[in-house]
Amino acid sequence: MSPGKEVFKGVEWRIRVADGSSEVLVPATGFARKTWRVIKGLISGLALKVWMFLKRAWAIAANDPRKVIHCIKVGLALTIVSLFYFMRPLYDGVGRNAMWAVMTVVVVFEPTVGETLYKCMNRVCGTFLAGFLAVGVHWFASRSGERFEPLVMGASVFLLASAATFSRLNPSAKSLFDYGAMIFILTFSFVAVSGYRVHKLFDLAHQRISTIIIGTSLCILVIMLVCPIWSGQELHSLIVHNMDKLADSLDVCATRYFNHSGECTNSNEEADKKLQGYKCVLSSKATEESMANFGRWEPSHGQFNFRHPWKQYLKIGASMRCCAYCIEALSSCINSENKAAESIKKHLSSSCLKVSSSSSSAIRELAETVKTMKKSSIVDLLVGEMNSAVQELQNDLKSLSYLLNPSTTPEKKKLETACIEATTTVPLMEFIPVVTLASILIEIAVRIEAVVDAVEELAKSAEFRIDDDDKSKQSKIKDKIVSEEEKIEGTTKALQRV
Amino acid sequence: MSPGKEVFKGVEWRIRVADGSSEVLVPATGFARKTWRVIKGLISGLALKVWMFLKRAWAIAANDPRKVIHCIKVGLALTIVSLFYFMRPLYDGVGRNAMWAVMTVVVVFEPTVGETLYKCMNRVCGTFLAGFLAVGVHWFASRSGERFEPLVMGASVFLLASAATFSRLNPSAKSLFDYGAMIFILTFSFVAVSGYRVHKLFDLAHQRISTIIIGTSLCILVIMLVCPIWSGQELHSLIVHNMDKLADSLDVCATRYFNHSGECTNSNEEADKKLQGYKCVLSSKATEESMANFGRWEPSHGQFNFRHPWKQYLKIGASMRCCAYCIEALSSCINSENKAAESIKKHLSSSCLKVSSSSSSAIRELAETVKTMKKSSIVDLLVGEMNSAVQELQNDLKSLSYLLNPSTTPEKKKLETACIEATTTVPLMEFIPVVTLASILIEIAVRIEAVVDAVEELAKSAEFRIDDDDKSKQSKIKDKIVSEEEKIEGTTKALQRV
Repeated sequence: MSPGKEVFKGVEWRIRVADGSSEVLVPATGFARKTWRVIKGLISGLALKVWMFLKRAWAIAANDPRKVIHCIKVGLALTIVSLFYFMRPLYDGVGRNAMWAVMTVVVVFEPTVGETLYKCMNRVCGTFLAGFLAVGVHWFASRSGERFEPLVMGASVFLLASAATFSRLNPSAKSLFDYGAMIFILTFSFVAVSGYRVHKLFDLAHQRISTIIIGTSLCILVIMLVCPIWSGQELHSLIVHNMDKLADSLDVCATRYFNHSGECTNSNEEADKKLQGYKCVLSSKATEESMANFGRWEPSHGQFNFRHPWKQYLKIGASMRCCAYCIEALSSCINSENKAAESIKKHLSSSCLKVSSSSSSAIRELAETVKTMKKSSIVDLLVGEMNSAVQELQNDLKSLSYLLNPSTTPEKKKLETACIEATTTVPLMEFIPVVTLASILIEIAVRIEAVVDAVEELAKSAEFRIDDDDKSKQSKIKDKIVSEEEKIEGTTKALQRV
Repeated sequence: MSPGKEVFKGVEWRIRVADGSSEVLVPATGFARKTWRVIKGLISGLALKVWMFLKRAWAIAANDPRKVIHCIKVGLALTIVSLFYFMRPLYDGVGRNAMWAVMTVVVVFEPTVGETLYKCMNRVCGTFLAGFLAVGVHWFASRSGERFEPLVMGASVFLLASAATFSRLNPSAKSLFDYGAMIFILTFSFVAVSGYRVHKLFDLAHQRISTIIIGTSLCILVIMLVCPIWSGQELHSLIVHNMDKLADSLDVCATRYFNHSGECTNSNEEADKKLQGYKCVLSSKATEESMANFGRWEPSHGQFNFRHPWKQYLKIGASMRCCAYCIEALSSCINSENKAAESIKKHLSSSCLKVSSSSSSAIRELAETVKTMKKSSIVDLLVGEMNSAVQELQNDLKSLSYLLNPSTTPEKKKLETACIEATTTVPLMEFIPVVTLASILIEIAVRIEAVVDAVEELAKSAEFRIDDDDKSKQSKIKDKIVSEEEKIEGTTKALQRV
């Protein structure tokens, strides 16, 4: 192609000048153009990222407004502590060391009261202990002559820092004073080393400790007075919510299996969400542990005393996770490729649904017990109901076995087997999915009893009161059981009609 | 009882004096005695606690000597940074701000390289950013008149602290710059506020940044040169170990069920430990996530490049947890109260054991693939083997179904059913446990394929090499499969003889 006939690729910008003629705007070519493009790309990319970030931030804020309150609390505490710089009399009192108060507020202010208290206590104790020890070591070092002083100080820093670091690696110590050990190392090396130069050691120690106490007291005041979030309360609610989620998952799991083309199609999305609820239980171990850990630092609040048995909540959580593992296995049954024979499904649906509904009622009642902190005698009733449902399911499974040898069917069983006569030609492969589901359901019922035991232990150690309106509740629950039975029967009949 | 005839309760201490007579040592009574007892109790209690602590510490140290090395490293880094105080020329260079270097070492030094780098980067960036911003705000505030200056400063502290705190609550930001945001708040409030009093603001900022850089460089040098522990390498090993544990659990689970009174009685404790291996997989989610998070800060090391796909390890971990849920259900089958009929066990044991052993071989081969970072074509062979074992198990299950209707048994099936002729009187209830176990085993095989996919994706994105000695390995693996089949046949025969 000749150079004169180059085809101009791209858009041509033309501007009409006042006299009617038009001028072509020559685009900035080469380097400038490329740079502009890169910059434009960068800016739009950055803007998009910022926009996405803000959108996510808004979603987080809308989802949990307490996070926004926490941010405001941090700002508030910091602004108050800044007053020490701005106001002459306060500044004169603590001098340049006011920075320690600012630093304390920044590092100890956490979302929950328990965590803040844990950090405050650790900071104060670590600072005190390390300060005393450092002064002692300093006194000893100063007696050992000018030549050995740095050696003694260096060796003590090395040894104590190593020992304190090691104590942080011990899991049981970690939960109690991990932060304190860090503050210990920090203060010790700081005081021991700067003591070698700064001669007003006691003044320094006094100022540092008083500023830290100012900072921690301010944090404690703000965190406990402005919309406090208690670790213990959070743990309590988490356990209650997880129980409800477990019950929902179990319900949806069973009904979806036996009632696949059923009425619940328009609320399918909601059901999907409920079905996934057990995953929250599976993944909440770390949260539960840290909350229980911080909960024990909290003073009496709401329904909870100072020494509320938070550890017991962990046991409840662990037993719930055991149930959740089974529900996971159950949910894989739903998605299994091996389809079960409809006739077997029909035969077992009633008792399976009864087991799942009575199990979920038991879990819900446990959630209610934990939530209201009132002992409930209905739990025993519901567990009894659950066990009799399990028994019924086992009988139904047994009645299937007469299919193997119809000749052994006793007279009284004839009636029961009548309805499954049609299934005698069903291959065992089509039994297996339902049978597996049934035995997982039975296992879940067994595991729920472990949850019941854990909750009862909590009720004992936390001295739950006895529910006053027990009797009305008992009759209500009996009505509920009857109505649920009718509902299940209805479903089963509908299934048999299909 | 008369006061003169009081029976002396407790031990009487007598001392024989030189002249042969003896004197009764009257015990210190009342308050002194009680106090002594309390003190003695306290001291012995404390001594016992210290002793237990030391014992636990020793166990931790013996279990993982790298923890001790980490402690020594912390001590070393702190001692080196202390030199800034002890040595005149260095001290003159940075002055009293040397404490920032000490503080940096204490707070950023973590056990793994990744975590230390993360904290170093965050500390440096957070300090820089906040410093610049604070100086800017300070300049603006100083222009607004003496009266408004504290107001502007206070408002800026409030707003920026709240915003930075909010960014810490965003999960995706948290993993990337949680620590940096805290340092940002700290530095900003510190510089902005003290700038109001300290007029040599730039000097302060310069010294603070240089000391922080000294501290972080020292940390990076010590952590990377003295026995470095890499987060990435740790994650890599954790995944490999977890795979091996999963395979062990699966093996022990199946053999224990089918070979309860078998030969492995004297190594029972070891088998118990192996059986519990899957629990490590269940509980390692948080560890995996934090390691993957820190791994991306690490430079190229060992077999890993800078941008090694650590996130992919999380996917492998998640798919392994799905297997572990099933193994949990499997292990509950072992402890189930419903005993299965021995005849059914015998009939299915061979194919069940084959599924479990081929599944565990597949997992072990995956572990080997990840460990050596070499693609292996044997995995496909083993997965094929696993699938054919699953097919065989399904056929065996199907063959059970002919028990329902012996009349439909085709000629070619007669031979197969011959061996289970005796079971025709077995009630279905005694089928259920084995059938449940079998279907869980099949589900495990399905989930292992998800692990295979995840590992293959890793092999793709991390560009694993192709194994050179593949052919010798293939023939080896074929021999192994044959020998395992012989072993299982032996076990089955032994079982049938019982």
